[in-house]
Amino acid sequence: MSGMNEAAAGAPQGSDFLQLDIGSAPAGGKADWLAGRLRRAIADGRLTVGSRLPPTRVLAAELRVSRGVVTEAYRRLAEDGHVEGRRRGGTVVVAVPVVPGDGAGEAGRGMPRGDSPGADAVDAGRAVAAGAFPGPATADRVNGAGHSVAADPFPDADNPVGPGLFAGPGGVRTAAETLFTGEPGPGVFDALRAAPARFDFTPGRPDLAAFPRAAYLRAERAVLGELSADGLGYGDPRGAPALRRAVADWLARNRGVRVEPREVLIVSGTAQALTLLHTVLRADGIDAVALEDPGSLGSRQHLRNGGLATPPVPVDDDGIRVDALRATGARAVLLTPAHQFPTGVVTSGERRRALLRWAQDGGLILEDDYDAEHRYDRPPVPALRGLLADRVCYLGSVSKLLAPALRIGWLVPPPRHRDALIDAKRFADLGNAVLPQLVLARLMDSGGLERHLRLLRGRHRRRRDAMIDALAAHLPGAVVRGAAAGLHLTVTYAGDVPDTDLAAAALAHGVKCQPLSWHRLLPGRPGLVLGYAATPAGAIADGVALLGKALRSLS
Amino acid sequence: MSGMNEAAAGAPQGSDFLQLDIGSAPAGGKADWLAGRLRRAIADGRLTVGSRLPPTRVLAAELRVSRGVVTEAYRRLAEDGHVEGRRRGGTVVVAVPVVPGDGAGEAGRGMPRGDSPGADAVDAGRAVAAGAFPGPATADRVNGAGHSVAADPFPDADNPVGPGLFAGPGGVRTAAETLFTGEPGPGVFDALRAAPARFDFTPGRPDLAAFPRAAYLRAERAVLGELSADGLGYGDPRGAPALRRAVADWLARNRGVRVEPREVLIVSGTAQALTLLHTVLRADGIDAVALEDPGSLGSRQHLRNGGLATPPVPVDDDGIRVDALRATGARAVLLTPAHQFPTGVVTSGERRRALLRWAQDGGLILEDDYDAEHRYDRPPVPALRGLLADRVCYLGSVSKLLAPALRIGWLVPPPRHRDALIDAKRFADLGNAVLPQLVLARLMDSGGLERHLRLLRGRHRRRRDAMIDALAAHLPGAVVRGAAAGLHLTVTYAGDVPDTDLAAAALAHGVKCQPLSWHRLLPGRPGLVLGYAATPAGAIADGVALLGKALRSLS
Repeated sequence: MSGMNEAAAGAPQGSDFLQLDIGSAPAGGKADWLAGRLRRAIADGRLTVGSRLPPTRVLAAELRVSRGVVTEAYRRLAEDGHVEGRRRGGTVVVAVPVVPGDGAGEAGRGMPRGDSPGADAVDAGRAVAAGAFPGPATADRVNGAGHSVAADPFPDADNPVGPGLFAGPGGVRTAAETLFTGEPGPGVFDALRAAPARFDFTPGRPDLAAFPRAAYLRAERAVLGELSADGLGYGDPRGAPALRRAVADWLARNRGVRVEPREVLIVSGTAQALTLLHTVLRADGIDAVALEDPGSLGSRQHLRNGGLATPPVPVDDDGIRVDALRATGARAVLLTPAHQFPTGVVTSGERRRALLRWAQDGGLILEDDYDAEHRYDRPPVPALRGLLADRVCYLGSVSKLLAPALRIGWLVPPPRHRDALIDAKRFADLGNAVLPQLVLARLMDSGGLERHLRLLRGRHRRRRDAMIDALAAHLPGAVVRGAAAGLHLTVTYAGDVPDTDLAAAALAHGVKCQPLSWHRLLPGRPGLVLGYAATPAGAIADGVALLGKALRSLS
Repeated sequence: MSGMNEAAAGAPQGSDFLQLDIGSAPAGGKADWLAGRLRRAIADGRLTVGSRLPPTRVLAAELRVSRGVVTEAYRRLAEDGHVEGRRRGGTVVVAVPVVPGDGAGEAGRGMPRGDSPGADAVDAGRAVAAGAFPGPATADRVNGAGHSVAADPFPDADNPVGPGLFAGPGGVRTAAETLFTGEPGPGVFDALRAAPARFDFTPGRPDLAAFPRAAYLRAERAVLGELSADGLGYGDPRGAPALRRAVADWLARNRGVRVEPREVLIVSGTAQALTLLHTVLRADGIDAVALEDPGSLGSRQHLRNGGLATPPVPVDDDGIRVDALRATGARAVLLTPAHQFPTGVVTSGERRRALLRWAQDGGLILEDDYDAEHRYDRPPVPALRGLLADRVCYLGSVSKLLAPALRIGWLVPPPRHRDALIDAKRFADLGNAVLPQLVLARLMDSGGLERHLRLLRGRHRRRRDAMIDALAAHLPGAVVRGAAAGLHLTVTYAGDVPDTDLAAAALAHGVKCQPLSWHRLLPGRPGLVLGYAATPAGAIADGVALLGKALRSLS
């Protein structure tokens, strides 16, 4: 933060800078508040890439706060990757969360912009099927002892599995034998969750031990202290205005999607988003939603339950095969373009252009942006919704950002579906619970959620590396894919052991995971989908060793 | 706010008063901020009942704000019912939101248990149409000036009304003219909520100013302190086991319903319960659900949206007419037997027996037990579910016990529908959010919720009495019904002014209420449905005076 004099030249200054009114900062949270204001100014274009922030000393004097407050705020923005200290150049805005239409520089910083259909920057960030094993697993793991003994948080003596699993007898006592037999029913995820196991590699969960409990409680206290009595009544079925604003800001900062708060609909997670879409799509004459294959079993079950056909469309290393999509004749498709589930493929630039052409010809894209914010080795790709608002319905949630237990997500539908979706949400449950919405809005507005994500990224990356190492060491012929981002990877292995058999043997050895074939209708190699984010590195090594043992027992 | 010297005596003063730091107040929201701080201090015991607030002039000087800021903050607390201006006595704290463990007197403490099927208490508690007016309203209300200016808690600049209301233009600006015109659509309740008005007599809300914020936060802290990391993952779609146990205990203690926790399904309020039932009933071959008439417009809209026919069945002073129910041929009926909405009729013993016979002949009763715990002048009747488990699906929620904003309810279905409802809940949203469930379980298990209800009953009874008095004084020919329990009453009046016209005129005069005809398909006298629970007594008197004025303007 040296070079203040140079930096000051030309920089907006003083209390007029962004019309900052420190009087509106909460006591004890001035740095948070200031960082939030600056973040918003970057997101909405008042501070553009390349512009300099006022020197800390100058801004502190103008705001009549200690210089430490300003330094701390700048530090947080630097951690976000939004600004950079450039010695003599001062503190400079280097990355707009995603700015449609400009062409900022190099890879890794600032996101590849892809707002105009066909932006080439996308290819720079293309999926690399990470066959890359950094050599044999090192033997010096810390914490080799058994941890992460994931006791089921919802034990229920009488019926641990719930209905809808399999017609046959058995239940949880014989989960290892029955869970992976036959066509998986709607209760299969509950059954897997309830099955006892020492190591849980179920995909889709972030590191829940890192959940910011203290920050959550602080935010809840503030919300309860400020909410009016009327605010405890029936709320807006579209969601609390504060959260809809916070989500709109979040999407602008992190996902390259610029929307008004009124375009955002708060829902109870992506599952509810799909449920609401069932009726709205059918009313729009859409009776089929094409699915990526491999693709999420849960989504397939969901759409079918809603009376929609789900023709499978193959995914290759560039993403979904758009020619095959056209061939299905389906007018809608559910996609995970930022990090395809379960393969981890990032949709290439060429394929994105083809998809957008398909959509412009009348197709509707349901964009499930489920874990786009979790990236390690490459910049995130911006969401498709930012490119073609009229033909893309965007789905997001906090399940991978904070915790699935919160059950909060959001929909940004195309304008023509908005009112019908609001009606559907109103009939579904009159709107989400209000207090958790307001708590989340605070965590988003304060930058707390972005700080949490940065913390998670470091932890997740170490766990991912541990899993890649362990697979190389313990699973014969392991080929890992989709590890450049997200909370899980897929692995194929030598031999022809069916993956359901391997998953069953793994469960018998105390390891939970999902067979790749659950998520596939089209033929393909057997494999496993392994979540690594919620398990400490040492336990990952131990669990994968047991996986290897299970595979050898079958070969 | 005269008598400042007296008031100052013994009052905490100055900037040390509550350690108020005006620097943490948002710009332009100082009165709000101050009211919030004072409210919290009353809630957490720093300001006890009987203590005096500093004189406005003194506090204003200490905080260096205009006296108007302090006056406005005090006014808001007076509207809440937390403080009262006492001429020479200054401004005094008169009500604490919730005091655990106090033993305020009279009947209505310790609830009569009604757990034996067929308890005779039912007949004793028969509906009494409360024509009882305790004489002309007294004229010596304190604080006759305008209070309870209930600004909409969810203003939204672009679209305050939401879709689904009426096709025509207008929106909130012409709410008074358009809201009550034509067939009410699914957005009509949102529109009414968003309409600005000084007095809000919308039925269905308890006293939300009494919400036990401190106890809620304490419970949340305990939950966050104890929950395992896995507990933050995907949960049991049936609901958190702790809450299902707490609800089972609650139903046994308070509603005469003895069930196992595994029979309880946690949902997002009664609205979601109905949504889940749509598909399950249709799958069971049920295509019509008979409705009480008068009966809830919201329920009618809901069932119709779910593709179910809703034949109306008249309600008389004994409850629903079972002969007419048989004549519809419908195989299911939605009932509010404990306190019929909106008439307040309690189903008589003879009628309950007839209903149970109808159910034993193959009928299904959906029992919406929406406000059974709120009773004043008579013991509660036990729920029908306790008498005929196989033919009754029980629906309850915390919307009237604590706050609609929590969006938590429960279903106790007949055994044969249980698994299908669990599947429906899983598809709907994978289960309710976990933290609010665990907080509620603590409030139920600790007795905190029952203490809260005792507090509410006293407050609600005073407000009900104030409304009855005011109606007698101001509404020509007023006949009140359904005031022996609940959160609302119905009133008919002399003359033939259509109730939609009266409701529109009332809104134009600044008073929100619902026309009785909204809730009726069969012919009947015009009337209003008036909620009194959420409005302080003084404001009730003022609002009802305006209602009378509105009626006179039309006669």
